[in-house]
Amino acid sequence: MNKLLIVGTVAFDAIETPFGKTDKILGGAGTYIGLSASFFNLQSAIVSVVGDDFPQEYLDLLTARNIDISGLEVVKGGKTFFGSGLYHNDLNSRDTLAPELNVLADFQPKVPQNYKDADVVMLGNLHPLVQSSVLDQMDSKPKLVVLDTMNFWMDCALPELLDVIKRVDVITINDEEARQLSGEYSLVKAAAIIHEMGPKYVVIKKGEHGALLFHDKQIFFAPALPLEEVFDPTGAGDTFAGGFAGFITQSENVSFENMKNAIIYGSNLASFCVEKFGTERMIDLEQQEVQSRLKQFKSLTQFDIEI
Amino acid sequence: MNKLLIVGTVAFDAIETPFGKTDKILGGAGTYIGLSASFFNLQSAIVSVVGDDFPQEYLDLLTARNIDISGLEVVKGGKTFFGSGLYHNDLNSRDTLAPELNVLADFQPKVPQNYKDADVVMLGNLHPLVQSSVLDQMDSKPKLVVLDTMNFWMDCALPELLDVIKRVDVITINDEEARQLSGEYSLVKAAAIIHEMGPKYVVIKKGEHGALLFHDKQIFFAPALPLEEVFDPTGAGDTFAGGFAGFITQSENVSFENMKNAIIYGSNLASFCVEKFGTERMIDLEQQEVQSRLKQFKSLTQFDIEI
Repeated sequence: MNKLLIVGTVAFDAIETPFGKTDKILGGAGTYIGLSASFFNLQSAIVSVVGDDFPQEYLDLLTARNIDISGLEVVKGGKTFFGSGLYHNDLNSRDTLAPELNVLADFQPKVPQNYKDADVVMLGNLHPLVQSSVLDQMDSKPKLVVLDTMNFWMDCALPELLDVIKRVDVITINDEEARQLSGEYSLVKAAAIIHEMGPKYVVIKKGEHGALLFHDKQIFFAPALPLEEVFDPTGAGDTFAGGFAGFITQSENVSFENMKNAIIYGSNLASFCVEKFGTERMIDLEQQEVQSRLKQFKSLTQFDIEI
Repeated sequence: MNKLLIVGTVAFDAIETPFGKTDKILGGAGTYIGLSASFFNLQSAIVSVVGDDFPQEYLDLLTARNIDISGLEVVKGGKTFFGSGLYHNDLNSRDTLAPELNVLADFQPKVPQNYKDADVVMLGNLHPLVQSSVLDQMDSKPKLVVLDTMNFWMDCALPELLDVIKRVDVITINDEEARQLSGEYSLVKAAAIIHEMGPKYVVIKKGEHGALLFHDKQIFFAPALPLEEVFDPTGAGDTFAGGFAGFITQSENVSFENMKNAIIYGSNLASFCVEKFGTERMIDLEQQEVQSRLKQFKSLTQFDIEI
């Protein structure tokens, strides 16, 4: 089985949406990526850090999904990263309240020895120096390195971010971030500028409006599945990235044509994530539901005009 | 050849976008629908009204496209409808300045005798009583009636609008209008409620985010083609509707599967419309460009996951 190395937060979240609110629940980019990638035939490991306040049941939940957590450091006496988000009516605007970095502030990632030859590396949203440090520790060049990031690092650590962006094959960011990073409003122009920064593939996530994959002059688009209700968008972007990276890892094929499929798998998994609060839906999700919803994606997008 | 009857304004527009501004130029829903539908193999006629200030060259432009204008009334001493729009930076928000209704205020549509048996009727955005009056004049039930409308009529003539909506097969409206008409934020729920109002097919236009077609439990999605620059969105929705109605008229097939293709044709034509000011691009557009861009739509959306 191919190996996927995941770097990203494993954390607590508190979420409020128009449909309700939660206490401290399981969250973090690494968690969502790991859960999403666990729907593919692969070996995966998460490199991250938590405090010793992190419940054993959450760790068990990850290992039950066959996620290797030997690279998940538990800091004695430390407190786990805690983020909270308040979503407004349209679920597109979010107030991110000041996160409690806690153990994340001094995090030095350590890649497990047996993942230094991982086939695919998924660098979840974290300080770009942490993302770079993971790449530094690899013994061999992975088949594909995917990076997710956010506007926060563009504001606070742009030089370090540009350094790590140079080293990756695929970048996934949302539309506003693509505009900020490139200085261009048009997403087509923004993608072209971001290509020049390093990544051969640029994925722009537009939330409920789908996702675009850019490669040279080629573009592919995957819609978000229209849902009766989006309950909580938390983790949708990470779940998308985990599905993308997971499918590529399983299929060992980094062609543009195969990346189209990976984008569809990512969108498919993300469409489940938003149906319940936090990780809830990803935890009770069955493989068979994933397959069945792929059919919906086909009928949603496929047409038969002869050209 | 099958017949398409078009009802909609033939008018003057003045447009201002971040890329420039125009004087009074050719505009109106009927004009855009007619130009767009002229790319199909069909006979078409526009029912509308202008004043005698309307230039002969604009009338010639329509007849040069084989559009029958015997139902286009020219009011002696009357002034043509004049609308103006100011688009902001993102091109999604528009200030519609108070339109000068002029001859439109007393418009009594008259369907030409040889179009009372039209195969498809495209009711462009106009007062719902005008739209109803056109349906009243038909000798036989058309194969398909498509209605476009806007929030203005929901605010000012809701009972009349609901009356005509009951009588149509397809309604095309944008996302905000779908929410206003249904009272539901979720577009899936909104479409279900609008189905109940009469139309078996609900098309929700999302501008740069594409278009959704709803029919019972089935959904189809067509993206907007990602463009380097959207120069002027004026007329894009009408061009989309004209492409949709034109393709259906030509193909004589009102199945859901064929409507998918019609939605793609509509999106395809709209992607040209926004490349220049007003009707400029639709006037210099060649059939061959339309066909060639369909290939882009295919590679943009088609994937080959085996399920």
